[in-house]
Parts: sequence; structure tokens; C-alpha cells
Amino acid sequence: MTDYVRIFDTTLRDGEQSPGATMTSAEKLEVARTLARLGVDVIEAGFPAASPDDLEAVRRIAQEVGNPTDGSKAPVICGLARTTRNDIDKAWEAVRGARFPRIHTFLATSEIHMKHKLKMDREQVVDRVIEMVSYARSFCDDVEFSPEDAGRSDPAFLYLVLGEAIKAGATTLNIPDTVGYTTPEEFGGLISGIIQHTPGIENCIVSVHCHNDLGLATANTLAGIQAGARQAEVTVNGIGERAGNTALEEVVMALQTRRPVFNLQTGIDTTQITRASKLVSNYTGITIQPNKAIVGANAFAHEAGIHQDGMLKNNQTYEIMRPESVGATQSKLVLGKHSGRHALKARLQSLGYALADQELDQVFERFKALADRKKMITDPDLEALISDELYQPREFFTLDGLQVTCGTMGMPTASVRLRDAEGVIHIQACVGTGPVDAAYKAIDAIVKAPNSLREFVVHAVTEGIDALGEVTVRIESKDGLHSLDAQSEVETPRTYGGYGADTDIVVASVKAYLSALNKMLVAMGVYTGIETPAIQGVAS
Amino acid sequence: MTDYVRIFDTTLRDGEQSPGATMTSAEKLEVARTLARLGVDVIEAGFPAASPDDLEAVRRIAQEVGNPTDGSKAPVICGLARTTRNDIDKAWEAVRGARFPRIHTFLATSEIHMKHKLKMDREQVVDRVIEMVSYARSFCDDVEFSPEDAGRSDPAFLYLVLGEAIKAGATTLNIPDTVGYTTPEEFGGLISGIIQHTPGIENCIVSVHCHNDLGLATANTLAGIQAGARQAEVTVNGIGERAGNTALEEVVMALQTRRPVFNLQTGIDTTQITRASKLVSNYTGITIQPNKAIVGANAFAHEAGIHQDGMLKNNQTYEIMRPESVGATQSKLVLGKHSGRHALKARLQSLGYALADQELDQVFERFKALADRKKMITDPDLEALISDELYQPREFFTLDGLQVTCGTMGMPTASVRLRDAEGVIHIQACVGTGPVDAAYKAIDAIVKAPNSLREFVVHAVTEGIDALGEVTVRIESKDGLHSLDAQSEVETPRTYGGYGADTDIVVASVKAYLSALNKMLVAMGVYTGIETPAIQGVAS
Repeated sequence: MTDYVRIFDTTLRDGEQSPGATMTSAEKLEVARTLARLGVDVIEAGFPAASPDDLEAVRRIAQEVGNPTDGSKAPVICGLARTTRNDIDKAWEAVRGARFPRIHTFLATSEIHMKHKLKMDREQVVDRVIEMVSYARSFCDDVEFSPEDAGRSDPAFLYLVLGEAIKAGATTLNIPDTVGYTTPEEFGGLISGIIQHTPGIENCIVSVHCHNDLGLATANTLAGIQAGARQAEVTVNGIGERAGNTALEEVVMALQTRRPVFNLQTGIDTTQITRASKLVSNYTGITIQPNKAIVGANAFAHEAGIHQDGMLKNNQTYEIMRPESVGATQSKLVLGKHSGRHALKARLQSLGYALADQELDQVFERFKALADRKKMITDPDLEALISDELYQPREFFTLDGLQVTCGTMGMPTASVRLRDAEGVIHIQACVGTGPVDAAYKAIDAIVKAPNSLREFVVHAVTEGIDALGEVTVRIESKDGLHSLDAQSEVETPRTYGGYGADTDIVVASVKAYLSALNKMLVAMGVYTGIETPAIQGVAS
Repeated sequence: MTDYVRIFDTTLRDGEQSPGATMTSAEKLEVARTLARLGVDVIEAGFPAASPDDLEAVRRIAQEVGNPTDGSKAPVICGLARTTRNDIDKAWEAVRGARFPRIHTFLATSEIHMKHKLKMDREQVVDRVIEMVSYARSFCDDVEFSPEDAGRSDPAFLYLVLGEAIKAGATTLNIPDTVGYTTPEEFGGLISGIIQHTPGIENCIVSVHCHNDLGLATANTLAGIQAGARQAEVTVNGIGERAGNTALEEVVMALQTRRPVFNLQTGIDTTQITRASKLVSNYTGITIQPNKAIVGANAFAHEAGIHQDGMLKNNQTYEIMRPESVGATQSKLVLGKHSGRHALKARLQSLGYALADQELDQVFERFKALADRKKMITDPDLEALISDELYQPREFFTLDGLQVTCGTMGMPTASVRLRDAEGVIHIQACVGTGPVDAAYKAIDAIVKAPNSLREFVVHAVTEGIDALGEVTVRIESKDGLHSLDAQSEVETPRTYGGYGADTDIVVASVKAYLSALNKMLVAMGVYTGIETPAIQGVAS
């Protein structure tokens, strides 16, 4: 058996299904580029049947990320489909432009799902799998099949279904622990059983897909790999519905740090992990707790103390990974107000951003403004600035001016001046319970797009209060738009995330809210223009 | 072998060692009360030799939480000590007031630690263990010994050291995977080996203590338990240095949800988990990511959609735990501006807060002020309000007034009025890079306590922007005060967390900063009065 474990990233599909993680097409494309740079083998780019927007996002990723022109490895671009002709048609339409396209289809095989969700008996399930895997294979040589809720399925029936899927043309068989229910022993046993008893499996890749409801996703994934799986389905930061999916960074770093135990390798460039983690957190608005393994702010935080002390000569005493190995180096003082355009460009390049001239101009202008307010501009400051400046959807409403008064002594008041797509200026003042509430009320009075705020998070990017404050918000529209969950087939109201950065947290809050509102207006079709393409210049 | 697994919580010791998690004595006492209510068997209350403050905090917990007067189970109160007479003396002094005191001492047994940190050979290590375990046992019948970095120790040497510790009087043997390095198979094998080969172990409790550097802490802990360990060392929310310790909630819920697999039980009242999680997050300022297992905001978030849809008749289709089982029920609309004192008291009681009359008055006043600004007061609002109103250190400087102007058009300006301990009023105005920076600069100009801001997080407590905003900050003093890490013996600059809640995030930010500053002033001895005792009225 080969020692290469494929990393199948589903941040853009299962990850994006987590509440409020909705991304714009431009953001999805940028995440896909980052995943390609990270070296993932397969990018599950979305669920094309969910909506025309979703299909279009997958299609762009297939074309632009699935066909690298710089000689780098082309990732497989995968689209999810339920076992219906319509879903498979849409998935194929979306991924066919990639050099290596894949269709991933699934059907539940546990008694509880067949009875309560599918209302199908075993024979019907087998027939459907044969029919739809064959149909997918008629388009595409690379077909993945998942027996949903495999963790709670009857093993004998599972072997039968998987054997039929193989005969019908499936090349990868993915075994999901859909509800995050199994223990490593059970899950490893399940994979062993499948490899031992499924006819024809020796010519296929066995894949594992775990959820973290009991905190066991990484251990289950590793147990599956040790039992012979050679593809792991993961997401960056472990995002996903409920407690999320298996975290890419944990599986990859466990395999690498404990190579003598596992004797396996992946194609991941681990030094890109921290950057990918930060990007996904910014775009989805899903924060990372400080004590998150590998990518949390404290994961390597004992460093300083130990070096300061100097008593511990051997850094392996309390350290099993080097921060550099995941790209978490902290170069502090980088640039200041006297740094020029060239120094900024060089620093951005070393961070992986190769901007076109015009973009560099934009960023440089923001950089100078920031440097006037803040003595030291650090890497995280630059990354926040780039996110804020370049990766925003084109704005239907832009912020033209904001003035706020608040405190303990009066009525918090905000005056907002917005410019709409036609260039018309709108001004509104409102009183609120606080400065942000007042500003949001003033914006609502202008934009008139009913929504409710689901989440609001502010954090400082770096140390020192003069750091850029980053705000992420998540709003739920009241426009009747829904997103469809492929597995539960439940429609939930669509939510939109927004991101803003500024040294003034009220300004950052307003930018974040406008960014979410603009995304919502695009989705509602109020704004017919297509959002700006993600910047081209990023090295990929 | 018994089927009862002891839960040993080290939130107040190993958890509090995570960067910035410093708590006041009053907060530690309240966490200890919450842990007792949660039903943990052992509370590791601190490392008494670290400082007189730490000793005093452990002593109060031993006296007040270690001697329940209401007939509830008395938890064991444990103090950590290095293998020195001074440390053991201090630990005993701290815990002796508890009905069930325990001394926990440790010494490293891995080659890398013995060589680089201890600079001792094997024989010296064995002699030290025998001497110090005996010394601890001369005070206390309940002695725990940990061979630090057991995960990387030579098994044969480990069996020898543990056997000698047992002969010297140790009653619990705790096996730490100090650097979070092992896999479940390895760690389970380590525990099996220890149980099989250590003379006298059959009369002791074997304990496991795992770290999450590779995301495997929960799986390793469960593997250790399956191999025969009957004590699990954990922290609430999995806080701790680097990627943290094993999360209490994950181990407990895995054992409960998969009881047929494990056939084991704990004494934990799982319905208290969400409350304990929230309390620890507030006091330490360590946020919980939405996709955190069991206690993350999204852990049960598919609920709404599925019920809405109504298609899935059987809630087990995508759910392996009920939110009620961990106390995560979301009763939304609770109270409004017309709710009276009695309704507030009743609601607080149902949340577990049994306030004395005077405290209820304080809270009611705040409640009415909040109800004027916010239509619906929810349970999380009430909990934020209680934290803000009752669990603050006594203030050296209190906020008497704040006025802020900011926005895109001018210079962010804050005017601050503070009252000091003698009642003297100080007023200062400052310009900053944003409203929070301006306000903090104004406070600094008055308080004159040099520090640097390490972290700044704002989040909305509930949905809707008129929710209370919660701010947590973490400052590092420049006063030369350090805290001592028991294991690495590294001294790091002390950091202080602060918490504030208000509908105005600038006001909340100022409150949080003042709360951190007041903690720092107390620690520096600037303020000689003792902080307020935590409120007495909380049901315990």
C-alpha cells in the first residue's frame, strides 16, 4: 500500500455550510487559490445544485484554480451531488473545466437515515447508488461515492453498497462519520472491515470524513488512515456544521510530527498552514480560539518565556513542533511611516502577495494612512489591510463619512454619509444603545435592507491598542433567500459575513456591516453588477 | 475494576497558566464553586509555592469550597508542589483546611527532561521521588505523584519510579503526556504497560493528563481510561498552555454519549457544563470558537433549521446529544422593561444565582437601566450583567464618566473622569487612533501604571446589535511582577485579564481595561485593601 495520503479539503463545501460562513465567489476563489498553494490534492469546491451562485463559484474555481499555468500541481476540483440526475448534471457542468474534475455523490446507508430521511428500503438504496454512480461515471473518470452516516450503518450492508458502487464505476469510496459519533477504535475497525470485505476495493482509494462532535475527529481520521484509508477529508481550522469537521492542520501535523509512528506522507506545504488558517477565519468570520491546536494564537506561545529564561537549552523539552514549520513566525517590527513603496512591495511579496501595480498603489495609500496613526506596521497589520482593501465585494453602498459621539453621559449618536452605486450621497443621523448600534441604525435607514445581526466580533490584530481592529459580523437576511444543506436537505435562511479593519473600531464595525450588506444586496439581485474578481496578482 | 472515572479539574492550575488567564482570588473561588456544583471529584486549586497570592487563593478554596455545609459532596482540594520541601510545605499549608486535602507532586522522568532541565541522573530522580513523596505523605493521606513527560520516558524506568512512589506513599499516579505528543494507541499502551508492570499499582488510582498539541488530547485520555485509568485530568473548555489540556466537556460527554462502548460513569452533572464553560471563558478572557465540540456556539446550531423544516421526524438523524443534556437550552425572551424585582429574582434563581437582597438591588438597578435600552433581556444578558456587576475586583479607580467622539472625519477624542480610592476625581482628555485608544490613553494619563495591551476582544452576547457587548482585555504589566510555571520553572511577566459589558462597546472597553488595571494595582500592592469576596449568595 502506498504511503501517500491525499488531502481532500472541503472548507468550501462542508466548511461553508457552517452557520454564517457564507463567502462571496471572489472569496471562494481566493480560498481555492490558497488551498492549491497549500498543496491539497482535492478541492471540494461546493455543492453546485444548491443555487446558480454556487454553481458559478465552482465553475470559476475549476477553470482558474484547476488549470494552473505556472507548472504547479493541478488540484482535483470536486463538486458534490445528491444521487439525482439534476444534481450530477449541475456538478459536471461546474467541474468539467478543470484539468482533473471529480464528481462526488452520496446516499445514506444507516437504518435511521434510510427510514426517516430517505424513506427507502435497502434494495432501493442499492439500485439508486448503481444508477447514479454509473450516470456520474458516464461524464467523468473520477467519481467519489459516500455512504452517508456510514458510522451507524450495518457493516454487511455497507460492504454490499460499496461493492456495487465500485462495479458502477466509483474510484474513491469515502466513509463519513456524519454525526461525529464513533471512537477511534470503532472507526479504525470500520475501515479495516470495509477494506477486508468489499469486493473490488483494492483498486479504489478509501477515504475518511469525520466530524468533531465528541472532540475525536482527528483521532478517528488517523485511525482510519492507519487502517488503510489513503484520503482524508478535512477543513481548514476544522470549520463545519455543529462542532465542525476534522482540522486539516491537525491531521497533517500529526502525520508529520509523528512520522516514525505513521510512516506516511502528504503533499502539504506546512509552512502555508498559518496563512491559510488566517484567510479562512477572516473570510468566514469564524474565529479561532487561542488554545486551538496548531493554529491558535497560543499554540506556540510559550516560546518567548522559554527563550527569555534561557535555562532550557534544548527547545524540545516542551516543544514538539517549531512555529516555523507551520509558517507561524512572528517577525515583529516590519515597516514604519518612512518605509517606501518598494519596501512595502518586498514585504508583501515575502508574505505571498504579488500585487499588480494598481493594487499596490491602493494598498500603499492605505499603508501610509495607517503608518501615520501607528508606529509599527506588522505582518498581521498588512494582512488585515490587504483583506480589507482588496478582497471586498464591489460596493453597492460605500462609506463616505462617519461621525460618532458616545460615552456614559449622553445618547450615543452616529451620523453616516453613504454613496450609492449611482454616486448619490445619503446622510442620516440616528441615536442608538451604543455607537455601533447608532451607526447601524443610520445605515439601515439609508439602505433599507431588512436583516438581523447574528454575530458581531471585534478583535485587535496585534498587540497594542493602536493595532488595527478587525470586526467580523454576520447578518441574516429577511428576504426569503435560503441555502440548501446537501445532506439534511434543510433550507436555512442565508446569512452573510462581513469584515472590516480600522484603528477605530466603530469605523471597522461600520465597514464590516456595509460589506455584509453589500454581499446580501448582490445575492438578492438588487445589484446586478458582478462583484470584482479577486485580485490577480497573488502568487499562485 | 470499578466503573467510576474521577474527574480531576485543573482549570485553576494548568488552565490558569495559559497566557493571560490570570484570575483574581475572588474569580478563582467562584470557579471552584462552579466546579463543585458541576460535580468534579478533585479540584486542583493552584500552585501555592508560586506566590503568597496563589497560596492564599488555594487556602480560601480549601476552606470555603472544600467544606460544603449544605450536605453536598465535598470535592478533594489539591495543591501542586515540585519535589521540594518548601513547595510541599506551602501546598499543605494551602490545602489542609479542606475536608479532603491532596498534595500533588511531580518530577520529570524522560531522558530529555532529566538531562536538560533537571540535570539529574536516574538514581537521583528516584531518590528525590522517594524522599518527597514520603515527606508529602507525612502530612496528608492523599498524595498524587506525576512523572513529568511520561509520554517520552523509558517505560522500564517509569515502572521503577512509580513503584518507588507507591512504596513511599503515593495513592494516585498521574501519567502526563506533557508535550501532547502521543497517539491514542501509544498512550493506551503506556497506561496498560504501567498497570501491568508497576509493583503495588493495584492499590492506587491511575490518572491521565493529556495535552492537545496534535488535537488528540480527548482521544488519548479516553484510550488511557479504556486501558484502566480511573482519573482524568481536564480543564473546562480545554484551556491551558499552548493548545491546552484535555477538555472536561469532551471526555465527560464521550463517556456519557457512548456509554455502551465505555461502560463507565462520572459524577458530573452535565447540565451544568454550559454554565461552567461560559464562566471560565469570561473570567479568563479565553474565547471559545463557534465550532468547539460541546460548548461552541454552533455545537447544537443545526437545531433551528431542522425543526423548522419538519421533514426530519427523528431528531437522532443528525444529533447524538440533546442541547438540554449540557444545559445549552436557549430560552430566548425572558424579561423586559415591565418585569419586576420578583420576576428577575425568580429568573436568576433558575439560572443558579441565589442573590442576597443587597446584591439583588444592585443587579435590579442595572437590569432596569438595561431594559430601558434593550427590549428583550435574555439569559446571556443576565449572566453578562451579573459578571459585570458582582464579580469584579474592588475598584481602585472607578469610571465616573466617559465622552467619546470618533469617526472618519476627525481626530478620535475621549474625555475620561475617574474616581480614585480616596474619592478624588480625575479628568483627562486624549486623542488616539480610535475611540478605545483615546480612552485608554486618557486612563493611562490618570492611573500611570505602565502596561502593554496583549489582547482585546469584543463580542456581542446575544443576537441583535442592541445586545450587551462584552469586552475582554489582557494587559501585561511593566512592574517586574512575574508568574512562575511549575513545570518549566520559567518566569513570565504577569498578565491580567479584565472584563466589561455594556450596550456601548466603547464603555465596555473602558470598563474592561479598568478592571484589568485594578487587578494589576492589587497585585502590585498599590492598593492594600483586599478585593471583595465573591458574592455569597450563589447556590453551591
